[in-house]
Amino acid sequence: MNIAIIFGGSSYEHEISIVSAITLKKVLKNSNLSFIFVDANREFYLIDANNMKSNYFSDSSYKKAKRLLLKRGAFCTYGLMGLKELNLGTVLNLIHGRDGEDGKIASLLEFNNIPYISPRVDASVLSYNKLYTKLYAESLGVKVVPYVVLNSNESRDIELEYPVIIKPVRLGSSIGVSIVKSVEELDYALDVAFEFDNQVIIEPFIDGVLEYNQAGCKTSEFELSIVEEPNKEEFLDFEKKYLDFSRDEKVEDAEISLELKTNIQDIFKKVYGRVFEGAIIRCDFFVVDGEVLLNEINPIPGSMANYLFKDFEGMVERLSSKLPKESTIKIDYSYIHSIQSAKGGKRQ
Amino acid sequence: MNIAIIFGGSSYEHEISIVSAITLKKVLKNSNLSFIFVDANREFYLIDANNMKSNYFSDSSYKKAKRLLLKRGAFCTYGLMGLKELNLGTVLNLIHGRDGEDGKIASLLEFNNIPYISPRVDASVLSYNKLYTKLYAESLGVKVVPYVVLNSNESRDIELEYPVIIKPVRLGSSIGVSIVKSVEELDYALDVAFEFDNQVIIEPFIDGVLEYNQAGCKTSEFELSIVEEPNKEEFLDFEKKYLDFSRDEKVEDAEISLELKTNIQDIFKKVYGRVFEGAIIRCDFFVVDGEVLLNEINPIPGSMANYLFKDFEGMVERLSSKLPKESTIKIDYSYIHSIQSAKGGKRQ
Repeated sequence: MNIAIIFGGSSYEHEISIVSAITLKKVLKNSNLSFIFVDANREFYLIDANNMKSNYFSDSSYKKAKRLLLKRGAFCTYGLMGLKELNLGTVLNLIHGRDGEDGKIASLLEFNNIPYISPRVDASVLSYNKLYTKLYAESLGVKVVPYVVLNSNESRDIELEYPVIIKPVRLGSSIGVSIVKSVEELDYALDVAFEFDNQVIIEPFIDGVLEYNQAGCKTSEFELSIVEEPNKEEFLDFEKKYLDFSRDEKVEDAEISLELKTNIQDIFKKVYGRVFEGAIIRCDFFVVDGEVLLNEINPIPGSMANYLFKDFEGMVERLSSKLPKESTIKIDYSYIHSIQSAKGGKRQ
Repeated sequence: MNIAIIFGGSSYEHEISIVSAITLKKVLKNSNLSFIFVDANREFYLIDANNMKSNYFSDSSYKKAKRLLLKRGAFCTYGLMGLKELNLGTVLNLIHGRDGEDGKIASLLEFNNIPYISPRVDASVLSYNKLYTKLYAESLGVKVVPYVVLNSNESRDIELEYPVIIKPVRLGSSIGVSIVKSVEELDYALDVAFEFDNQVIIEPFIDGVLEYNQAGCKTSEFELSIVEEPNKEEFLDFEKKYLDFSRDEKVEDAEISLELKTNIQDIFKKVYGRVFEGAIIRCDFFVVDGEVLLNEINPIPGSMANYLFKDFEGMVERLSSKLPKESTIKIDYSYIHSIQSAKGGKRQ
């Protein structure tokens, strides 16, 4: 299987995307891998597999690699000999955060007719923005953690039951996220969150809440991971998350009842629906008073949550042969022709 | 003012986009215009202004025009002399329907750092999909026409009060839209709509409903058009809409109370919010029992609804100097550096 991993991006999660890509290089052992790096300035570089080391990017060595252009049908090298199209196979979008998760990379690949594993543009917008995720989930009848939205230009004089958790609506990896235990801490936490976005979402912080993650995708049928009970720290800060993105060791299935497991998997399938076809996503759930609530959708989870799947590489291959196809639109200029002939064929 | 109008696209509305572009050529008299055509195969062509006639596209003459590539910072010509960057100014996205309104063109321009007038990617996804428009409006407290969503794989055995109007969730210009007067007509209308999308939205069809359109954008402040009372036909079919896209004659302000006008304008501003910054949009409203309901958001209205504005060209110029800017993300590799130094500087 030919897979081109695209990573990096103009994103706060640029560095963890590099870590994710290095991890997937280890995991996808039997595939013919290429690596497309998107640098901070959004130039594309074709990275030799031997150079897939974090230093190579942090010390700017990558700038010696071949630059690529994206055009209809292919990534291309270019130079004195003109454009040369590369046949890299299916592109796997591994850019976390901006560019990768906000729909831009999906749009670039879709527009240019390049097969790709990634949430499509609408799935990206719905999952990148935590408010839109709530609206989407609610429209499906999926329960979510209750929330309040606050814009940076609105009054902060709001009634809340503490503790609460404050998140910028549009970032992942816990960036800009704070737990606020009393009203005195509110202002500072909002300042932090508003550094990253002009809209924040405020939710009750439920100490010791039961948390479960379910990853999966749809190939010819749903392929679901084990249910993971994630690390029970207050919450993962950026540095811990960073290490989390390099995970490749298998974890154990959570010890939960079959009923709860089925419930989680049914909700996952409902959320995935048709909207997320073509993507491997992870949904994070809370269980409160026996009720399963959707917390977040990770449209491009760290190292694609590979460690949750029994046969990750096989699944990637199956998915790459079951990608959603754009509908074909035939343009035959029938309206222009009919107007032309009504006008006696004169150009207008 | 340098403006590059991008039009065409792989869209059912490809032809009306050509009509829109020809119309704007007439309207933007004092600007230095360029024309970028996206053909059905999504190749970019730089069209000479003298060739902006509908025949030129329908008879494939455009294929003799210069092909363009889009790269970081500019559209480029390419050939034996390599890539040559063009400085075309602000791009005005005039691709109706797929590619233009679904977030793809916005993504391409944003990713490549090209200034552009268009809904951004999230605004596109929210307005291109009629269901997401409803969810978005409801989250703002804006009332909408009541609706039911039906997926193509779901039972059609649904209780409805006729007449209803059936629309594919993701298309504009009345394509695939039917008015259904009784249950006997339902199946055929659903078949038609499902030809264009796998999800449809069903709304009550309110005969003779009061309908008002409000267009506008935000430059240094909101610039709103007159309120238009559109053509009162049962509804516009594709051919009538097609002609509608070539409009450039001014219309009259609707004869409505100041109270209703203020109400419509306030709702427009709420919908526009920050999400639609950078775009000139038109919102279509119904008034039912004195209540203003949002019917649709047209993120790229036909010929940019130029005929509703007193100073359309001036507004485009003001908007092009007030486009939203992406936040800058500094990537300093601090995490990779700190991990490297903890490991004694060895590459990993």
